[in-house]
Amino acid sequence: MRPLLFLCLTVLALRAAPPAGPEAALQAIYREALVNGRAYDQLAELVTRHPGRLAGSKALEEAVIWSEHTLTALGLDRVYKQEVMVPHWERGAPETVRLLAENPGGAAIGLTALALGGSVATPAEGITAEVIEVRSLDELAALGREKIAGKIVFFNRPMDPALPNPWDGYRGAVDQRSRGPRAAAEFGAVAALVRSLTLAHDDVPHAGNTAYAPDGGNIPAAALSTLAADRLSAALAANPARRVEMCLHSRRHPDALSHNVIGEIRGTEFPDEIILVGGHLDSWDITPGAHDDGAGVVQSIEVLRIFRALGYQPRRTIRCVLFTNEENGLRGALAYADHARRSGEKHVFAVETDSGGFAPRGFSLGSTQGPVHERAQRWLPLFAPYRVTSFVRGSGGADVGPLMVLGTTVGNLLPDTQRYFDYHHTAVDTLDKVHPRELHLGAGALAALIWLVDREGL
Amino acid sequence: MRPLLFLCLTVLALRAAPPAGPEAALQAIYREALVNGRAYDQLAELVTRHPGRLAGSKALEEAVIWSEHTLTALGLDRVYKQEVMVPHWERGAPETVRLLAENPGGAAIGLTALALGGSVATPAEGITAEVIEVRSLDELAALGREKIAGKIVFFNRPMDPALPNPWDGYRGAVDQRSRGPRAAAEFGAVAALVRSLTLAHDDVPHAGNTAYAPDGGNIPAAALSTLAADRLSAALAANPARRVEMCLHSRRHPDALSHNVIGEIRGTEFPDEIILVGGHLDSWDITPGAHDDGAGVVQSIEVLRIFRALGYQPRRTIRCVLFTNEENGLRGALAYADHARRSGEKHVFAVETDSGGFAPRGFSLGSTQGPVHERAQRWLPLFAPYRVTSFVRGSGGADVGPLMVLGTTVGNLLPDTQRYFDYHHTAVDTLDKVHPRELHLGAGALAALIWLVDREGL
Repeated sequence: MRPLLFLCLTVLALRAAPPAGPEAALQAIYREALVNGRAYDQLAELVTRHPGRLAGSKALEEAVIWSEHTLTALGLDRVYKQEVMVPHWERGAPETVRLLAENPGGAAIGLTALALGGSVATPAEGITAEVIEVRSLDELAALGREKIAGKIVFFNRPMDPALPNPWDGYRGAVDQRSRGPRAAAEFGAVAALVRSLTLAHDDVPHAGNTAYAPDGGNIPAAALSTLAADRLSAALAANPARRVEMCLHSRRHPDALSHNVIGEIRGTEFPDEIILVGGHLDSWDITPGAHDDGAGVVQSIEVLRIFRALGYQPRRTIRCVLFTNEENGLRGALAYADHARRSGEKHVFAVETDSGGFAPRGFSLGSTQGPVHERAQRWLPLFAPYRVTSFVRGSGGADVGPLMVLGTTVGNLLPDTQRYFDYHHTAVDTLDKVHPRELHLGAGALAALIWLVDREGL
Repeated sequence: MRPLLFLCLTVLALRAAPPAGPEAALQAIYREALVNGRAYDQLAELVTRHPGRLAGSKALEEAVIWSEHTLTALGLDRVYKQEVMVPHWERGAPETVRLLAENPGGAAIGLTALALGGSVATPAEGITAEVIEVRSLDELAALGREKIAGKIVFFNRPMDPALPNPWDGYRGAVDQRSRGPRAAAEFGAVAALVRSLTLAHDDVPHAGNTAYAPDGGNIPAAALSTLAADRLSAALAANPARRVEMCLHSRRHPDALSHNVIGEIRGTEFPDEIILVGGHLDSWDITPGAHDDGAGVVQSIEVLRIFRALGYQPRRTIRCVLFTNEENGLRGALAYADHARRSGEKHVFAVETDSGGFAPRGFSLGSTQGPVHERAQRWLPLFAPYRVTSFVRGSGGADVGPLMVLGTTVGNLLPDTQRYFDYHHTAVDTLDKVHPRELHLGAGALAALIWLVDREGL
């Protein structure tokens, strides 16, 4: 055959070839994630250089700059920031909670604690009072003002270990932290202590936000480690008159300027249709935030890197959004959705990763238009080699939830759940708790799902 | 209503009530595993008191006594041992592998290594030779005797990181360890080095067995950590004449007496039909063996504890078998199956747990009678709340494999796989690598499957 004819036929054959099927695409995506994955190294940078990324902190704004640089280095079509005013609460000097001795001259016992996010401070000399232990907000209400007034209320209902999914245990106990201190204040309590939300039995206290009444009258509130909670509970069982001293030094400042960080690859066919993948840049002040949500940040960046490395030209615009202030305000997510609404941006799909960098097991999917997770079942055979085995109904995570209201289909990466609440909102949420391959498999799963949505729709 | 009539009606109602359905049974089983699970505490005992449980060792026979006591404390219907003669290989003094300096007077560089199980020793003064690096047994054969004779063969093909399941990477690389040294000896090599079988990039060498020719002519063989393998490879790339010195002090003793340890709850309807759950008591000499297979041992014991705690009266006999000598001989499994065959014991189902104490994700099932895993699909909805999401075709593990040949349906617990080969056959397979809830969920999954097989058949 003459060379030119051969060349023409080859070119025709290549042009006529169907695009690579989804099996091959997913294989290429996962291979890129597993063999050349950068997420773990980037996570090491983020959590080592910029730990304690709480809204209003210097660390968070340094992480904003780091992530803008990291996205820019990918050679994306657009990298930009969105200004957001965020709450600015600071812990101040380390808090102390002490179980006072029964007898004058006895030694007080330190109870490992963390002020809850948003908590007011105690007076400089602290608050000292008797403690009343309750297991629920109902029990608090049943006791009433007579039993509560002047006391420190101690919410001590553990997460239920019988529930296979620790997230269910968390949801069943978190009201004590989020609403307990406000409710205790309404009955005249002088302060609140809350058992840390974890199934681990250790001396690590877990931070987290508490919601106050808008009109003041708030009381200082702190979380106790589970061991400290057990110690206090045992002491109260022996002597209900035992007193605790709490010293919290937190302070609320005026709102501060922060940023959502955004990078995107422009779509070739439908550039105005946006597929979003995101996590949140901020963390509690006392943690490197490796799983929560450093993992989600670097996975979201990695999705764009994978597409760039494979030379994938998406039909729709693929956008990575690193939200600010998820932990104590959700201002980043609200500002992002508000901007999308006002500017008429069309988000066809928005998937969040904020449940830790553990081995991925599935996705939740949700839409105000109907049970979109059912249509995704057709993709399960494609995901079987990678052990992503379920699409369940959901409503996205905190950061993409506001987009669902605007009509966007939202999703949430569901990794393995057993270890998350060992580290959640703690100083031990460190890099060594993240496994590189588990983290990279999560990025692969996100990129694979986005590829499918981009090619086939949901 | 008169008390007696009420009592009679109540008794009739109770008798007429259908037995608790499988949903309720699984819920009770998992609750017992998660809330009252003993497996983790027992694992702490086993690996702390009896690390290094290699066949022929005092540690293994002490673990035999420990497990007999632990089973006896459950108040089972029968606890007994089965005598098994096992190979007795000892590592002796710590091995040394050194990359010699290029120039006289230069310092040698230590390469972190472990003699492979079964390896012969070097002469006391060691073996010093040039090294030839190969990536496969095919490459070895292509080089042939001329290039190989007198040299140390260095098998350095990594596990393939692109494969989502590290077990596939292991299967694709293990021939270098299991058959490489024998093949190298056939071409006149004086010793063999093998890259450790792991995807981790660290200085931890991984032990494991190597198979020798039965008629002698064997050469010393050791595994290098992946970092040491990379270091050696880089040195050889720069100078192929670099020499390595190996000193191995291992020794093969006459076979020693060991034991399978067996405990059982006798079946109420079909006591002669046996459902077996098991793991292996032995481990490599250099490891506590927490995941491999301390986890399987304590999960197997836990299955019986759960049934006892729930007062479950099985229809068939439920038997826990803790096999000896899985790692370097499989003598326990072979002796067990041989005894079953000779005594006419009928094993209807035998499930093994020997893939680490990670979060369970499914089971493999196999039978010479047909695709039994297909019939198990009906149970997937029951397991959905516990995230056991697949039944795939398999042939059991090493220890129950010999029973499959006898017609028994065999199974294998399939936990999450990403972290297993970070620890497999190493000194870092320690208790802290095991998560209590993940371990207990595995025991729950095993007990749930056995309950279903006992009630419904497979």
